This record gives sequence, structure tokens and C-alpha cells, in this order.
Amino acid sequence: MTTSELLHATPAPRADERTLDLLFRDARTTGRFLDTPVPDELLRDVHDTVRWGPTAMNTVPLRMLVVRSSDARERLAAHMSEFNRARVLAAPVTLVVAADTDFHLHLPTLTPHAPTSGDGLAGVPEVRARMARDNAWLQTGYLVVGLRAAGLGVGPMTGMDADGVDGEFFAGTSWRTLAVLNVGWPDGEGTDRPRAPRLAWDQVARVV
Amino acid sequence: MTTSELLHATPAPRADERTLDLLFRDARTTGRFLDTPVPDELLRDVHDTVRWGPTAMNTVPLRMLVVRSSDARERLAAHMSEFNRARVLAAPVTLVVAADTDFHLHLPTLTPHAPTSGDGLAGVPEVRARMARDNAWLQTGYLVVGLRAAGLGVGPMTGMDADGVDGEFFAGTSWRTLAVLNVGWPDGEGTDRPRAPRLAWDQVARVV
Repeated sequence: MTTSELLHATPAPRADERTLDLLFRDARTTGRFLDTPVPDELLRDVHDTVRWGPTAMNTVPLRMLVVRSSDARERLAAHMSEFNRARVLAAPVTLVVAADTDFHLHLPTLTPHAPTSGDGLAGVPEVRARMARDNAWLQTGYLVVGLRAAGLGVGPMTGMDADGVDGEFFAGTSWRTLAVLNVGWPDGEGTDRPRAPRLAWDQVARVV
Repeated sequence: MTTSELLHATPAPRADERTLDLLFRDARTTGRFLDTPVPDELLRDVHDTVRWGPTAMNTVPLRMLVVRSSDARERLAAHMSEFNRARVLAAPVTLVVAADTDFHLHLPTLTPHAPTSGDGLAGVPEVRARMARDNAWLQTGYLVVGLRAAGLGVGPMTGMDADGVDGEFFAGTSWRTLAVLNVGWPDGEGTDRPRAPRLAWDQVARVV
């Protein structure tokens, strides 16, 4: 039996509908959490799963600051927009999602098939900054899905002074803040806001 | 019984290990596809699922050009890096993933809780360009996961002349090319390349 015949005889594995509900269709941006703590171990487990998602040249530039202590929480909240301050202070745990603009330093180990792949990147910081930002946002998509897959709710926020967060936590490093995610188990649906609509396929796709 | 007690009595729903293997741990960047066609209907189904993923202000700026005809395929391949040309020509279907820099025109319908949310964006094209790019990359993460959830393999590529692709397909529009994804059912693992490593939690995370 050829692989193609096998595919038709036994459909390729796919995620079940219940899981797609959990990851996408029923999940809401969470603003109301249970006070159950979210241990570092669980966040590590989620990263151990989502880190396998693809990025350009296997650059994997996503970095995370896990904001847990009340001191760090206050320092972060000070750089959030007014509306988001109380959310950071109330969440079980908060992740500052960042892009590492020096991701190329890891490429000799990350690309064993092309260990010199990062050599040309040392002298082009603007190219690296864009690659880091693009690919860390891509990985943030994987991360949101991975947190939901673990049963957690996520409240992503970009309303903040990102340069201020960088100065507060990442001074002298190559990490640059992209977004802040409140994380915890949702209390009920995790929000009272009605589901906002989305665009339809015909509004977002063209076929040529 | 309080919600918190309920959580401890019945664990929150989470994705099973087999699904996490499918979405992340076993999935590989696919370069070798079965010749089984990928119908538009299936791509639409995937979008209908992943479009529910969160974006800033519900901007959902991700757009897709489905490249299917041999003419369109040749036109796209001409703007890919040499190594990626044959891949585009051989894939069952190819998606050009783009960011809509005029996403704000949809906000009156996308944010019924704040229908004037896009008003301040009309005069700041640079802010919109960045928001569109960031959030469309975030949605590309959801899209890769959604395609894999449907049993498909994905071969993402950024090695191309993105401005050339824009000129070829998006001239006079607000769509800007981010990446090109070959899509189809993987032939076996879909690649012969050994799995490249990833960074460990302690290399990507700090706790404060």
C-alpha cells in the first residue's frame, strides 16, 4: 500500500472538535481568574511543548519574564496603561513576552545543519531586530495556544510603555518587550464581555 | 461548591498528549508532500477556527493569498530565494501570508464594544504598519497550529523578495507579505532533516 493509498484508507490524525473549542472557538481573552497559583513548573511544561513550533532559521527568539513577586508586579504595573494596571496586579502570574535581538548567538547550536548561519547577522542589528520581533510574535501565537492547551486562560495586553518595561527589567540586555500576558485558570468564561465578531474567509482570503 | 473547589474536584479541560504531539512535538517543517489536493473548503475551515485567536484590539490583520494555479505559482516562485523556488512549484498549495495595513477600516464592526476605536489610527500609517505586522505574525502562529490540527503539514518560508511579492500580487492594496507557507499532507515525516534542537526553559525565561 502506498502512503497515498494509506492516507485515503485511514484519515491523517487530526485534533478533535473539543480540543479546537478549547484552543480557539470557546477560549476568551481572560480578565477574571481563579486565585489558584500557576507554578513555574507548569509554565516550563508549556514552553517545553511550544518551543518545537517553527521559526525562520530556527531562531526561536521568544523570551519570557515571569512576574511573580509583589515588588516585580508593582514595577511592571507602573508601565502599563491605566486600564491594564489593575489587571497585572490581580493576575495569578504575568508573563512579559520579549524578543531577543541577540538570538544569533545561539545559532551555532540551534542550526547544526548550518552552524555558520548566524555569521552574517552580527553586523546587521536592524535586520536582527526585525527577525527577532517577527519570529517572537509568531512564537507568541504558539505560546497562547500552548497555555490554553494546558487549561489556562490568557489575557494578552499591549497597552503599555514597552520602552519603560525594557528599562525596568531588561536594561543592558538584548531582550525587547512585545506584550504582557496575564495567565491563570479562568473563573467561568473569564470575561463578561460578549464575544466580538471576526472577519469571514471571503474578507481575508483571495484565491489565484 | 465554589468554582475553586470545583477546579480541584474536576481538573480543567486540557489538550491530550497525542494532540500536543500532533501540533508541536512531532510536527516537522514539511518539505515533502503527498500529491493529495488541499481544497479551499479545508483552508476555510481552518481559518474559521483560528480566526478566534486573540489580537490587539481585535484587529485580526492576517490576510491570505491562496496560490493554486500554475500561472500564479510561477509568478510567486520568481520572487522566492533560489532554494525555495522548487518548493513553491512542488507544494499541493501555497499560502502567501500578509498583513493588512488598513485593518482599522474593519474596526467599527470588529469592536462593537468600542466602535470608534479605530478613529485615531487613520492618520498614523507607521503605527498601523507595525500593529498589522505584529498581530498578523501572531495570527500566523495560530494558523500554523490550525493547519496541523487539520492533519496538514506546513513548510513556512521567509527567504524571498517580499516587496517583489507585494508588487506581483498586492499592488494598489494594503496587504503586505510576511511569509509563504507550503501546505499539504506530509509524506511520512515530511522531511529527511534531523530535528534541530531548541533552547531550554532556563535559557529563555527569568522569574522575578
